This record gives sequence, C-alpha cells and structure tokens, in this order.
Amino acid sequence: MLVLITYDVNTETTAGKARLRKVAKQCVNYGRRVQNSVFECLLDQAQCIALKAKLTELIDEEVDSLRFYYLGNKYQTKVDHVGVDHGLAADQVLIL
Amino acid sequence: MLVLITYDVNTETTAGKARLRKVAKQCVNYGRRVQNSVFECLLDQAQCIALKAKLTELIDEEVDSLRFYYLGNKYQTKVDHVGVDHGLAADQVLIL
Repeated sequence: MLVLITYDVNTETTAGKARLRKVAKQCVNYGRRVQNSVFECLLDQAQCIALKAKLTELIDEEVDSLRFYYLGNKYQTKVDHVGVDHGLAADQVLIL
Repeated sequence: MLVLITYDVNTETTAGKARLRKVAKQCVNYGRRVQNSVFECLLDQAQCIALKAKLTELIDEEVDSLRFYYLGNKYQTKVDHVGVDHGLAADQVLIL
C-alpha cells in the first residue's frame, strides 16, 4: 500500500537538525521524497509498523510531529501534482 | 471528502516568500494546518477544483510544487499522528 509520511521537525537547535537528517534518511530507505518533508512509501503492513516505530523513536514528540496517511493499493487516482517534480515514482507508475 | 494538500514553495527570493504566504493564506480558508506545509481540507468537488485552480495560479510551477491527496469520506482510519499537535480537526472528528 502507499503510505504518505509527512513530518515537521523543529530545527531551532542542533539536536533538531540532527533529528531531521535522521528522519529523512530513514524515509529515503523506504520510499521517494516528493517534497521537502513529504515521502511516499510503498510498504506492506509489517514494514509500515517497523518504519513508524523507527521514526517515532527518532523524533522529539514534544516539538516534532509525524503524520501517516494510508492511501491503499489503488492510489494512482488519489494523487495530483502541480509544478516542479524532482522525484521518481515509488513504483514508476505514478508518473503518467 | 478529505483532501490533503502539501506544498513546497521555494523561498530563496522575496517573491518566493510572498508566494508561500499567499498559498498558506488560501489553504487556511479551506481547512486546517496540520504541519508547516500540510493542510487537511474538507471539500466538495467544486471547492476542490476552485482551490486547486487558485493555488496553481499562486505558485511558480518552475520552482514550487503542490500535491493533492484525495482521502475520500471515510478518512478517519486513514490518518495517524505522532508527536506534537497544535491543530484542530477539520470537522472535530479527527481527534479521537
């Protein structure tokens, strides 16, 4: 299924900047970056649980946030893009 | 239906900063800000088309991007949040 992950990491501190890098790095392992703080990942249930646990561990829940949107398997018609696009499709199907 | 709008606006220039403010202002009119560049909007088809047209007009498609994710009407189970949350639910139902 397609899981959209968005995050806000507070980068006012050096520790925050480090958290941001770690979160982005972890997401890169699982999907493609479609915008600065937005990743699209094709995951099965187990991968999704694992990634969520890893990211939750990385952030500071007092100041950062993660959001997960579950778009299912029929996601091709559920996404629209306008403007510049530097990314690659998660499964090479999203670019139409 | 719930429409998730995410945007990346290039703020390297003064014009870019102005575009960012305008995009955010427009989104605020239609929904709630759940993260810095992520809005959740409850829209019907006509509102969705209108908002998309407005936002597309505001951005510079050479350097900025918008993404729209259509989460339908049964979205309550399709969203997970971890960490700090300053927002209000779009229809006061998302906070469970």
